[in-house]
Amino acid sequence: MSISFNYSNALPFMQEHEVTYLGDFVKAAHEMLHEKKGPGSEYLGWVDLPLQYDQEEFARIKAAAQRIRSNSEALIVIGIGGSYLGARSAIEALSHTFHNQMVGKTQVYFAGQNISSAYITHLLELLEGKDISLNVISKSGTTTEPAIAFRILRDYMEKKYGKAGAKSRIFATTDQAKGALKTLADKEGYESFVIPDDVGGRYSVLTAVGLLPIATAGIDIDQMMAGAAAAAQKYNNADLATNESYQYAAVRNALYRKGKTIELLVNYEPSLHYVSEWWKQLFGESEGKDQKGLFPAAVDFTTDLHSMGQYVQEGRRDLIETVLSVKKPQIEVTIQEDESNLDGLNFVAGMTMDEVNKKAAQGTRLAHVDGGVPNLIVELDELNAYTYGEMVYFFEKACGISGLLLGVNPFDQPGVEAYKTNMFALLGKPGFETQRDELNKRLSDSTQ
Amino acid sequence: MSISFNYSNALPFMQEHEVTYLGDFVKAAHEMLHEKKGPGSEYLGWVDLPLQYDQEEFARIKAAAQRIRSNSEALIVIGIGGSYLGARSAIEALSHTFHNQMVGKTQVYFAGQNISSAYITHLLELLEGKDISLNVISKSGTTTEPAIAFRILRDYMEKKYGKAGAKSRIFATTDQAKGALKTLADKEGYESFVIPDDVGGRYSVLTAVGLLPIATAGIDIDQMMAGAAAAAQKYNNADLATNESYQYAAVRNALYRKGKTIELLVNYEPSLHYVSEWWKQLFGESEGKDQKGLFPAAVDFTTDLHSMGQYVQEGRRDLIETVLSVKKPQIEVTIQEDESNLDGLNFVAGMTMDEVNKKAAQGTRLAHVDGGVPNLIVELDELNAYTYGEMVYFFEKACGISGLLLGVNPFDQPGVEAYKTNMFALLGKPGFETQRDELNKRLSDSTQ
Repeated sequence: MSISFNYSNALPFMQEHEVTYLGDFVKAAHEMLHEKKGPGSEYLGWVDLPLQYDQEEFARIKAAAQRIRSNSEALIVIGIGGSYLGARSAIEALSHTFHNQMVGKTQVYFAGQNISSAYITHLLELLEGKDISLNVISKSGTTTEPAIAFRILRDYMEKKYGKAGAKSRIFATTDQAKGALKTLADKEGYESFVIPDDVGGRYSVLTAVGLLPIATAGIDIDQMMAGAAAAAQKYNNADLATNESYQYAAVRNALYRKGKTIELLVNYEPSLHYVSEWWKQLFGESEGKDQKGLFPAAVDFTTDLHSMGQYVQEGRRDLIETVLSVKKPQIEVTIQEDESNLDGLNFVAGMTMDEVNKKAAQGTRLAHVDGGVPNLIVELDELNAYTYGEMVYFFEKACGISGLLLGVNPFDQPGVEAYKTNMFALLGKPGFETQRDELNKRLSDSTQ
Repeated sequence: MSISFNYSNALPFMQEHEVTYLGDFVKAAHEMLHEKKGPGSEYLGWVDLPLQYDQEEFARIKAAAQRIRSNSEALIVIGIGGSYLGARSAIEALSHTFHNQMVGKTQVYFAGQNISSAYITHLLELLEGKDISLNVISKSGTTTEPAIAFRILRDYMEKKYGKAGAKSRIFATTDQAKGALKTLADKEGYESFVIPDDVGGRYSVLTAVGLLPIATAGIDIDQMMAGAAAAAQKYNNADLATNESYQYAAVRNALYRKGKTIELLVNYEPSLHYVSEWWKQLFGESEGKDQKGLFPAAVDFTTDLHSMGQYVQEGRRDLIETVLSVKKPQIEVTIQEDESNLDGLNFVAGMTMDEVNKKAAQGTRLAHVDGGVPNLIVELDELNAYTYGEMVYFFEKACGISGLLLGVNPFDQPGVEAYKTNMFALLGKPGFETQRDELNKRLSDSTQ
């Protein structure tokens, strides 16, 4: 198994018994997940997903990815939230740093994750002259951001390829049976993939939502599912003493209960930046409710040691650091001797950059612990499709347990509706007239 | 003037007098800055910089940028922290979203901002066959991350262009008189630019540190300095009632004093993402000390409304939101009518995307205020080099005042040394032997 969890550097800030005392509660949470009896139990499809997914659809995903790779220079993925971050995190973690600029790669771009007219205009400029395919991802088909982008890009493709040509280049990932996008896909004849009813957006990276873009980028999704399946088996036991995913959940809850309110996910490889964004959604949206929850933030080290490092070392002491570490580097680069040694770096000549990076990580950990920041480590043996799948499951399972320990429903997101309702009202959507008048009055009162 | 500040949506959470009572303290802080008598007064070169900078060097920067643009497809900028984030924030904010992929643009890449061997290897692969120039930025020339990258890239350039050819393509931004990089630049004959002694890294974007890369990207640095100069004049008065930069400083301090501990900088244009990273360094490194300071975090909306939105709406109520808003969009895109209207979006047909984006912003603000999050707005009339310069100064001045009100030295960063000392010791740097043994013992005790 290729993930390990270590919280020895949190023990200067809490007693071991603060974790072990949670053992029976973790067991209760485990049963809530596995017997589908806790809050949000209608959204537990992710628990066994890696062990029992639709093999026929999986084969269709691989075939579609292959087809896109053979006839398109770029895939445009339209989606937001969980329909964006999972695929993006995997592709950035597992591809060439500049994958969209390397000759011979199928490029992947994202759209519908914002409402910026500059962004979509620039994207269309970039795509000029390229053969493209489109994967539109939306459970309902009516979410504002992706729906606007899809109107624009569908029109663009139909002009470029004709209606019939566009049809064979548009892939819809949506509800199995109902909704605007499903209706359209059936009417137009787009190949469709399913967003299961019992898997929420932030838990959906191992469904078609994530898998089609990921496979199109050239990543081995068989390996990814195999890694997730291994993790599903490994973390399928209620015993806190041995289940490291649950240990992570318990330790962060123990620290939260004694006043730590911000958790920083730390990496030392820039390719993991979007894994942190994915993790922020997973934990922030699962736990940030009922006026509770660790605030999830992220830093890319050592880059951000030169920006946020000062705060972490000496600012308010309400932080936890969780380091997502990769043991074996993807590539080795040896630092060369320099005759003049003006930079004084010859003491690292002959070492690899990764050795220096690892010493920076160790030194940082000790410095931050000394400064008053508990430190947790989630370590992957290496970074590949298999360990990515394991890691996804490790965090998903930990998140479910953690949210239940916190006393929230980890699988809903009632707060996300509030801005949408206001936005619809302000935009004049039929049915929102009363709210509209009220909001406009408030806006004019506040002179903004 | 093209920046305005509005805190009417913070007033449900505090009395107006909580701000006005700070007036005399703001005045005192203003005098500490302008009479150079407060803590950190040796680093106040940024205060008058836009009004009195070295015109001869400025002309050399523009000439160098022009030369790079004429003989290089890409500029590699080596730097970390303040020698990275300023230039990157300006270039991303003011260029084409995909500027490094557009034909005819001088590409700009960054190096030395991490210790990832994958990153530097991939960068070298990407650069293969391209004509390049190099701007190495380091006050001392011995900071580990940029020094390692410079060893690699200098070697690469000398192999590619020969020593003489490389010399004319390497530009050093460094100390005026001393240090490893200055010594090397003089010895090799690199053209050099100055990092002033009295301007700290996070305040350095309007010095050669930022200006050479920014000008090379094709951005009008005359306009940028003009905007900054206008702001330096506008915000050069001690009167809280009229100085909006100081109002921002006072309001965030007032909210901090009543328990708000996290400030989220919010944008609605993805191109502002790195402005937030720059802002995080500015405020986090200036204020995060003596166990104090607002924790700076950032979100890109509406993207992150679908990840962090739930937490902002309903999580722990220790958040402030500061929205960096742009009134006039860069590009207008009108949403088209769709006959079938399956997505139900025809109620926005005929509107521009930016109108929808603005309604989303208004709706979000009201929803978050209703949810218990005070909301501040910093609004730029539009986004261009001039307003970027203004905005930089607005935040710099606010940060100086804010840090002084908090009771810290806003211009030092003592905590950044802690990880470096440990790292040097663990790497076996001569002179750190005692710490090394001690740290290695601690590491082996914690089994990591």
